[in-house]
Amino acid sequence: MSHAPRGAAPPPAPDFLLPERRARIDAVVAQRTRTLTVVMEAFADPQNTSAVLRTAESFGVQEVHVVVGPQKRYDRNKKISQNADKWLEVVRWKDTPSCLAALKARGFRVYATHLGEGVRGLSELTFAEPAALVFGNEHAGVSAEARRLADACFAIPMRGFSQSFNVSVAAAICLARAVDRRELERGRHGDLPPAELEALRARFYALSVKQRGRIAKAARVAERRKA
Amino acid sequence: MSHAPRGAAPPPAPDFLLPERRARIDAVVAQRTRTLTVVMEAFADPQNTSAVLRTAESFGVQEVHVVVGPQKRYDRNKKISQNADKWLEVVRWKDTPSCLAALKARGFRVYATHLGEGVRGLSELTFAEPAALVFGNEHAGVSAEARRLADACFAIPMRGFSQSFNVSVAAAICLARAVDRRELERGRHGDLPPAELEALRARFYALSVKQRGRIAKAARVAERRKA
Repeated sequence: MSHAPRGAAPPPAPDFLLPERRARIDAVVAQRTRTLTVVMEAFADPQNTSAVLRTAESFGVQEVHVVVGPQKRYDRNKKISQNADKWLEVVRWKDTPSCLAALKARGFRVYATHLGEGVRGLSELTFAEPAALVFGNEHAGVSAEARRLADACFAIPMRGFSQSFNVSVAAAICLARAVDRRELERGRHGDLPPAELEALRARFYALSVKQRGRIAKAARVAERRKA
Repeated sequence: MSHAPRGAAPPPAPDFLLPERRARIDAVVAQRTRTLTVVMEAFADPQNTSAVLRTAESFGVQEVHVVVGPQKRYDRNKKISQNADKWLEVVRWKDTPSCLAALKARGFRVYATHLGEGVRGLSELTFAEPAALVFGNEHAGVSAEARRLADACFAIPMRGFSQSFNVSVAAAICLARAVDRRELERGRHGDLPPAELEALRARFYALSVKQRGRIAKAARVAERRKA
């Protein structure tokens, strides 16, 4: 365990990381973005939150927004998120308008999933500008506020009898599409400015050193028990 | 409840279906295909099987293959599949070679997901020909047999620290991509020949009549309890 105080960034101590791990971190950071994000609005099932976090992390989405619902707080599920949230910035909000207003002030186009009449298809959305994809509660869908504040409502075309996709499946389909479109429309997906890239790299080095420390400690404990 | 014997197709009794329901069935059948399929190989978690069935149904995939694993049998989970399997043909196999040989004999290109060296990216696959997407066990991945028998191994590019997507998320991303590509390469996704289309329509009418009968019966029971 690192003895650095909580909150303060411990020194990167790069000698403690294997070159392969450093190369992996560098590759991940190069594919990270803060111009594509996900908003999870009042999810009822924390497993869905964890699943979306894992998917977002896998697509290089660095920042994710969680609007806390009335029923349950977001509860970290390590098994499902596979610790993905450790590598993410998860921003928690008490209400949807504050969250969406903040994103719009930062220049995001807000796209809310909604299975209503006259909404656009996923394939019609553009990702040339920064974009936030809003997913709603599993039962009620996105709120009326989210629909009102969104730049557009959209849906994944449904071709069968099922009325909807599971929300973590929907998020994956939308993120996959968004990343493809971004590469077409923006030329690339990962786009952190140099200073942010450096800061994130340093943070990931530090997190990995901590992780390595924990693994080494666990190995020593296991060794001692065997002895 | 219908009094038709199990297994025999009851008469379509179209008068019993609302016109909206018939129109919905017709629309679904027009988008159905048997030239895109999914093979689930020895999944450990039946919830994943149920989730993939729901996703496949939503994408109009009519036929799905399940290779039963040594650990657990496929156990129907209504909550997660949302009864999607009712509208599907789920073919069960005892082993992978029999399943893949049967598909190849029918002209399918077999694409196995595999996170190894030198595999293709999802975006490199072609869907001009009938195609089967093989997803492996959550821990072990696809079997060596599946990799050997496949026409190609492929992976969804991973951009973050997570080593893999959840298998139901992976299936959704691949199916979304496959449907897009099919529309580009084949001009359309739903492609049942007229006779199959008619037979499926008749089956869905009959299933819906049964369902309507059950709903009506449940309503009568509830009414009687209230009285």
